[in-house]
Amino acid sequence: MIKLVLSDVDGTLTDNRRVFSTRAAEEIRKIQAHGITVSLVSGNVIPVMYSLRTYLGLSAPLFAENGGSMIADDITSFFSMEKPALFFDHLQNKGLARGILTNRWRLCSMGYDPTPGREREILALAGEFQVDITNSGFSWHILNQGQNKGFALLHLIKMFKLRPEEVLVIGDNLNDMPMFQESVKKAVPANAEPELKAKADYVSKLPYGDGASEILSSLDSF
Amino acid sequence: MIKLVLSDVDGTLTDNRRVFSTRAAEEIRKIQAHGITVSLVSGNVIPVMYSLRTYLGLSAPLFAENGGSMIADDITSFFSMEKPALFFDHLQNKGLARGILTNRWRLCSMGYDPTPGREREILALAGEFQVDITNSGFSWHILNQGQNKGFALLHLIKMFKLRPEEVLVIGDNLNDMPMFQESVKKAVPANAEPELKAKADYVSKLPYGDGASEILSSLDSF
Repeated sequence: MIKLVLSDVDGTLTDNRRVFSTRAAEEIRKIQAHGITVSLVSGNVIPVMYSLRTYLGLSAPLFAENGGSMIADDITSFFSMEKPALFFDHLQNKGLARGILTNRWRLCSMGYDPTPGREREILALAGEFQVDITNSGFSWHILNQGQNKGFALLHLIKMFKLRPEEVLVIGDNLNDMPMFQESVKKAVPANAEPELKAKADYVSKLPYGDGASEILSSLDSF
Repeated sequence: MIKLVLSDVDGTLTDNRRVFSTRAAEEIRKIQAHGITVSLVSGNVIPVMYSLRTYLGLSAPLFAENGGSMIADDITSFFSMEKPALFFDHLQNKGLARGILTNRWRLCSMGYDPTPGREREILALAGEFQVDITNSGFSWHILNQGQNKGFALLHLIKMFKLRPEEVLVIGDNLNDMPMFQESVKKAVPANAEPELKAKADYVSKLPYGDGASEILSSLDSF
């Protein structure tokens, strides 16, 4: 029986322009009202997750910066800004990338737009600076090593004392892969990347928020 | 004919616990798709308005900090943090107030919880520090003089070159009063304060997001 749902946001609960599905919002509220814990994890920043938590009416902690920071009544950052900031400065100085609007609100990651054609160069440099690079499908992020959505998943499993098979994860893009682990249940909307579909227990025929809504409305089948 | 709608958020598009009405979200998207400009103004912070703009899919600029700051593709602060921060420090040092979580994201205002029983003392001190005090119904704010939702309204009227009678404002609480000006159309949900009801062209029989949804679905009647 599923006791906790951990979902990605952009591309999973939204459409391809990041407009949030009101159907998904309704399903989320419905399953929370039925006693299931609902958490979200995104590459976006703490105040954005603060907004989603407030306006969706969620009570569980939510995770920002690909799992690196968490908001409940208070804010927790599990990683430091030191390495991401250092690498970002390096990229900027070499003309390889530009920062994004939300960087001013980040605690332990940096977002960037790569200079066209220089994407591989950035990936090649990351190891040297001991950082990880991920792409949400909406933007590129510089993370500390070990900072990913799998980290958020493990944190929730411990916090709520769950068995992995009591957890359903939902996502669509490559930065969701670290939470697509063997032991938990996994579902994806139709727009998900092939790598995620290959691992999923269930692939919705519907894309984006409609797919997530269908998944959320049939939790009993997991 | 209404060409622009400017609405408050908390208590107007949400319920009394700040959970956003999905019906209101749908109505907002519908009227924007019909060519009407939709903007929001709140006592909340820029990244929260950034989230609402993204996840509602709005294209107009939105206003934070009671009209003091604005987000479109970029962020603009029309006022400084100097006086609100100075007054807040004074309140804190005298044990009159505590800060709120969102203060770390503010550009030109401070939010506070007054020490119970000391509310009037705070109001009495504000003039001396040349700041205004307002209450959204959800929290107290320290603002620069002239920083209010009427400022945001005038900014939008200029920006979109509108006549005031082409603008509909919607709000529920006393910090919405500065935008309830003679020359614009005004509507309120059933939970609005009596002072706003007295000025409104239309008072919905429905409260909160349901009231706003009803108003938004009948723009032709204004």
